[in-house]
Amino acid sequence: MVQIKKGEKTREHILKTTRDLLVAQGFHNTTISDIITATGVKKGNLYYYFAGKEELGLAVLEDAKAEFFTFLARSFQGDAPADRVLHSCRAIFAEQQKNNFVGGCLFGNAALEMSDSNPAFARVLGDVFCRWVAEIDRQLAEGGHGGLGAAELNSAQLAKAIVALIEGGIMMSRVSKDAADLDDCLAVIRAMLGS
Amino acid sequence: MVQIKKGEKTREHILKTTRDLLVAQGFHNTTISDIITATGVKKGNLYYYFAGKEELGLAVLEDAKAEFFTFLARSFQGDAPADRVLHSCRAIFAEQQKNNFVGGCLFGNAALEMSDSNPAFARVLGDVFCRWVAEIDRQLAEGGHGGLGAAELNSAQLAKAIVALIEGGIMMSRVSKDAADLDDCLAVIRAMLGS
Repeated sequence: MVQIKKGEKTREHILKTTRDLLVAQGFHNTTISDIITATGVKKGNLYYYFAGKEELGLAVLEDAKAEFFTFLARSFQGDAPADRVLHSCRAIFAEQQKNNFVGGCLFGNAALEMSDSNPAFARVLGDVFCRWVAEIDRQLAEGGHGGLGAAELNSAQLAKAIVALIEGGIMMSRVSKDAADLDDCLAVIRAMLGS
Repeated sequence: MVQIKKGEKTREHILKTTRDLLVAQGFHNTTISDIITATGVKKGNLYYYFAGKEELGLAVLEDAKAEFFTFLARSFQGDAPADRVLHSCRAIFAEQQKNNFVGGCLFGNAALEMSDSNPAFARVLGDVFCRWVAEIDRQLAEGGHGGLGAAELNSAQLAKAIVALIEGGIMMSRVSKDAADLDDCLAVIRAMLGS
C-alpha cells in the first residue's frame, strides 16, 4: 500500500511539474530531457508511468481538466444565474491576474498548438470546451437573466460566446499584460447577461 | 533596377512561405532548415535578407499585419456601422472556413506562443490587436447601432469584445472543426450590435 501511495505521489509530481512546463513553453518546445530535469525523476521511472511524451501530455490535460471543472463548479457563486456566471468569469480572470498574465490558459494554448495535428489532444480539448459551455448553459438555462438572452439567442449560444470571450480576452491580456483587457471583457459579459 | 526587383521577389517569397510554415507549426517548432527546404533558397541567401529566425519571424508578422489591415479596411461593407462590422467578422470567419478551420489566426497563434517570452513579438501583436479594436471602434463610434452600446458600455469596449470573440471563436473552431462555433459567435456579435 505504501508502495502504491508513493507511486501515486510520483505520478502526481510528474503531472504537475510537466503542466508548468507545458504552460510556459508549449508541447513541441518541451523535451523529455526538460521534463527529467524539472521533475528530478529518472528516465526509466518516467517511462514506467508514461509510455512517451504524447501519453504524458494527454495525462497532463486530463489532470488539468479534472481540476478545472472542480474549480468551475465552486466558482458559480451567487443567487441569480447571471451573478453566478459573472462570479465564475471573475474567478478565472483573477487567476490570470495572479500570474501577471503570463502562461494563459493551458487549454487555449494547447488548442492552438495541437488541435490541427493531434486528434487525441483535440478530443480532450473539445471535451473541455463543450463541457465548459454546457456548465454555463446549465446556469443560464435556469432563466431569470435578461440581456441578450431576450433576443433571438438561446442560452447555449450565449454560453459559447462567454467561453470564446474568456479565451480571447486571456489572449489579448497575454499580449498587453494589462488588466483592462479582462475588465472590458467582463463588462461586456455583464451587459450580455443583463446583470 | 531588375536586380532590386528580383531581390524584392525573393524576400516576398521567403516571407509568404515562412508565414505558411509558422501558421502550420508555430515559431519554435519551425527550424531554419525547414525554411530553407520550403523556400528552396540557399542558406547564405536567406541570411542576406534576414539576420536570423527572429528577424524573419518579425518580418513575417509585419507583412501579415499590413495585409490584414488592407483586408480589414475592405471588409467594412454596408451602410449602417453595425452592418459594416458584421460584414467584417463574416469575412474573417469565411477565411477560417475556407481553410477548414486549420491554421487559425497567425496573430492569435503567435500571441499565445510568443508574447510572454519575446517582447519584440509582443509589441507587433499588441499593435495588431490595438489597431484592430480601433478600426472597429471607429466604425461603431459613428453611432446608429443599438444593442449593448445602449448600456453603460462604450464603443471601444464593444470593439475589444468583438476582437476577443473572433479570436476565441476561431480557437474553438480549430478544436471542433465545426462552422457552428463561428456561426454562434456571429449571432452573438449581431445581437451585441443590436443588428
